[in-house]
Amino acid sequence: MSISLDRQFLKGHIGTKDVHAILPRLKKIDLDLNQKRGEGSEFTGWLDLPGRIEDKFLRELEELGIQIRSISDCFMSIGIGGSYLGIRATIEALGGNLKLPIYYAGHNLSSDYLYHLIEQLKDQRLSCVVISKSGTTTEPAIAFRVIRQLMKAKYSDKELKQRIICVTDEKKGALKKIAEKEGCKSFVIPDDVGGRFSVLTPVGLVPLAIAGVDIQALVEGARTGQVEYASSDFEKNLAYQYAVSRFLLYKKGKVIEVLSSFYDNMFTVAEWWKQLFGESEGKGKKGIFPASLILSTDLHSMGQWMQEGPRRVFETFLMIDEPRHKVVIPEEKDNLDSFNYVAGKGLDFVNKQAFKAASQAHYEGGVPSMTITLARADSFHLGQLYYFFQKAVAISGYLLGVNPFDQPGVEAYKTKMFEFLKRT
Amino acid sequence: MSISLDRQFLKGHIGTKDVHAILPRLKKIDLDLNQKRGEGSEFTGWLDLPGRIEDKFLRELEELGIQIRSISDCFMSIGIGGSYLGIRATIEALGGNLKLPIYYAGHNLSSDYLYHLIEQLKDQRLSCVVISKSGTTTEPAIAFRVIRQLMKAKYSDKELKQRIICVTDEKKGALKKIAEKEGCKSFVIPDDVGGRFSVLTPVGLVPLAIAGVDIQALVEGARTGQVEYASSDFEKNLAYQYAVSRFLLYKKGKVIEVLSSFYDNMFTVAEWWKQLFGESEGKGKKGIFPASLILSTDLHSMGQWMQEGPRRVFETFLMIDEPRHKVVIPEEKDNLDSFNYVAGKGLDFVNKQAFKAASQAHYEGGVPSMTITLARADSFHLGQLYYFFQKAVAISGYLLGVNPFDQPGVEAYKTKMFEFLKRT
Repeated sequence: MSISLDRQFLKGHIGTKDVHAILPRLKKIDLDLNQKRGEGSEFTGWLDLPGRIEDKFLRELEELGIQIRSISDCFMSIGIGGSYLGIRATIEALGGNLKLPIYYAGHNLSSDYLYHLIEQLKDQRLSCVVISKSGTTTEPAIAFRVIRQLMKAKYSDKELKQRIICVTDEKKGALKKIAEKEGCKSFVIPDDVGGRFSVLTPVGLVPLAIAGVDIQALVEGARTGQVEYASSDFEKNLAYQYAVSRFLLYKKGKVIEVLSSFYDNMFTVAEWWKQLFGESEGKGKKGIFPASLILSTDLHSMGQWMQEGPRRVFETFLMIDEPRHKVVIPEEKDNLDSFNYVAGKGLDFVNKQAFKAASQAHYEGGVPSMTITLARADSFHLGQLYYFFQKAVAISGYLLGVNPFDQPGVEAYKTKMFEFLKRT
Repeated sequence: MSISLDRQFLKGHIGTKDVHAILPRLKKIDLDLNQKRGEGSEFTGWLDLPGRIEDKFLRELEELGIQIRSISDCFMSIGIGGSYLGIRATIEALGGNLKLPIYYAGHNLSSDYLYHLIEQLKDQRLSCVVISKSGTTTEPAIAFRVIRQLMKAKYSDKELKQRIICVTDEKKGALKKIAEKEGCKSFVIPDDVGGRFSVLTPVGLVPLAIAGVDIQALVEGARTGQVEYASSDFEKNLAYQYAVSRFLLYKKGKVIEVLSSFYDNMFTVAEWWKQLFGESEGKGKKGIFPASLILSTDLHSMGQWMQEGPRRVFETFLMIDEPRHKVVIPEEKDNLDSFNYVAGKGLDFVNKQAFKAASQAHYEGGVPSMTITLARADSFHLGQLYYFFQKAVAISGYLLGVNPFDQPGVEAYKTKMFEFLKRT
């Protein structure tokens, strides 16, 4: 299998009995989810989305990508939350800039960030994708104002039309109106897929196609996930195994989950995962606290806490079987650092030993863990992984007794912010 | 004051009574720390370090910086943990590359990372600083092997001597031997300052001077911190107020501390802080779990959890009074996104309202918080901030009843890794 789940280091923390006791509930939840009878079922469009995406649509996006690349030195992807993390996660997991450099805006309110970005790109041929369901989310709306002003000073109306692409609501909202007024190409964010589940909708697919990601492989991977994680049988469904295991750990007082990867290109995948799980589960005073580490970097930082801190934590390792490149460790004649015994080996061999050592040491220190391994960090496996986590969070949210598809708490600060802003 | 601490949102969580009850212990701990009678006192050299740094030494480093910059297009800083995070934190907080671009290596075992780095730098005039007390820490030792081989193929022995700088033990260890054999310049890591406290030793100062950071201002800031946070009087010492408050919160079940900044350039400062607090406190099954968020980005991700998840968390905001650059929000004639009411304002004004909104909303949602505000994210204030946190963690570690200066758990995975490696 191209994605595997190792649960050996749950031993002593979760038993077969614990799992068996929960299977009847899992069965019911599986039915509720599939028959769209559970809470928030109006936002479960992601469930069969991969299978519904038409190849024709993907080819259309690829052609858009070719066209935008032909007139641009780089492009900007403007969005926040689910309209930002999945895109960046994919690009970075694939090793960074691909066919067209991508820059991000609208995901913060930092003037230094936006200032430097504008300085850096002012002499480049620029296009941009703006992603917002409403068009009135403060961060992307203001960034788009600034960027649009910049582009208007540089390009004719006709050129602007080609260079600005909107991903927004089908019918309503400020961004839809702007797109219509300016005559820009516009793609639809479906109503039944929430932001954190939207990486396989035009939210993710449009900018990824422009950047040059193989979106056909990405969707193919998600389709494989849709089939692979459809079974209601716990033994056959890795997403269910992951969901149930983390729920059982939570019930036993493991209130923090650390997603640890030995591959730094998975950093933003972990950020995407934090939104998916944090926003789906963190409500009603419930929910595992999702954190992430990049190892071995953080073994020399948070490693001490993981090894000997409070035993309220479990770990999920995210491993890659085959990195893209090989670096061979050279022989040194004098061997002053004494590492000649690994000379001739690949650096990844040492990385894998560090993983084995850390997972075993943490387990012996009282930290249970699971390991998710991808054959490669390519578009296909990322697509499958996204679906894996989406399916898992739906199940673990329902097990927890919350609606995994809403985010009522996000409004609290927004409401206050508008109050503060209007007061001025 | 140039660094302030706001504790208004502790109200209802920590009372004057709680604080008063702990003052006698604080007094004792303050004495133990200053008279070097506490556990781990052999590693408290950082305490009066800023005052001991000679201006002559700083000028020497600045001259080294000028010399390295004159022969280099960029340089590499090779190190992990405390020999990595403080350097990167400072550079990034200051806005990125300064007088000489800096690249990092030896902080992970990713072959893709190292491969891309080498590809990127192969045609550049390269120098490097290697930082390791022993010279046998796997990650930097192997990276240095690879980089040294690369540089040997490119430069004569005489040139190599100028381009490789070692920061290591005064007398012993593999890196010291390599430095002697190759005839490289070598700087001393003092014995009485642990890795996570070492940013103001040559560990931090050498690469920062080469990059072009104003190290005189950095040290001046730390000296100000040394004076400012010397008082044993709780009311006068902000570092003690922070330390005591977080300890009291921990005792009341707030087991996770989230360092939240609305300034993305503080990202690695938060990573440095995580090492400092995680590694100092996470032992004997004790210790707050340190996590970090960059807002407003993460308000659209972890914001839901912060607002409505389990109330086991408190927040420390890290704010900047004056960012370096201003971006003005433009007026739009048609005002389709309805943001004209902030047109003419600076983006940072909106960021500050987002901060006020988030801190208040989270507090009302049951999350107590403190806010540390720096006047500016410049070298001076970073120096003071580093000292602030170092003093605070010493106190909070002692309050917790652990030795804040050791890291016994870091050895566990290292020992196992050597076993695995040797087995091959």
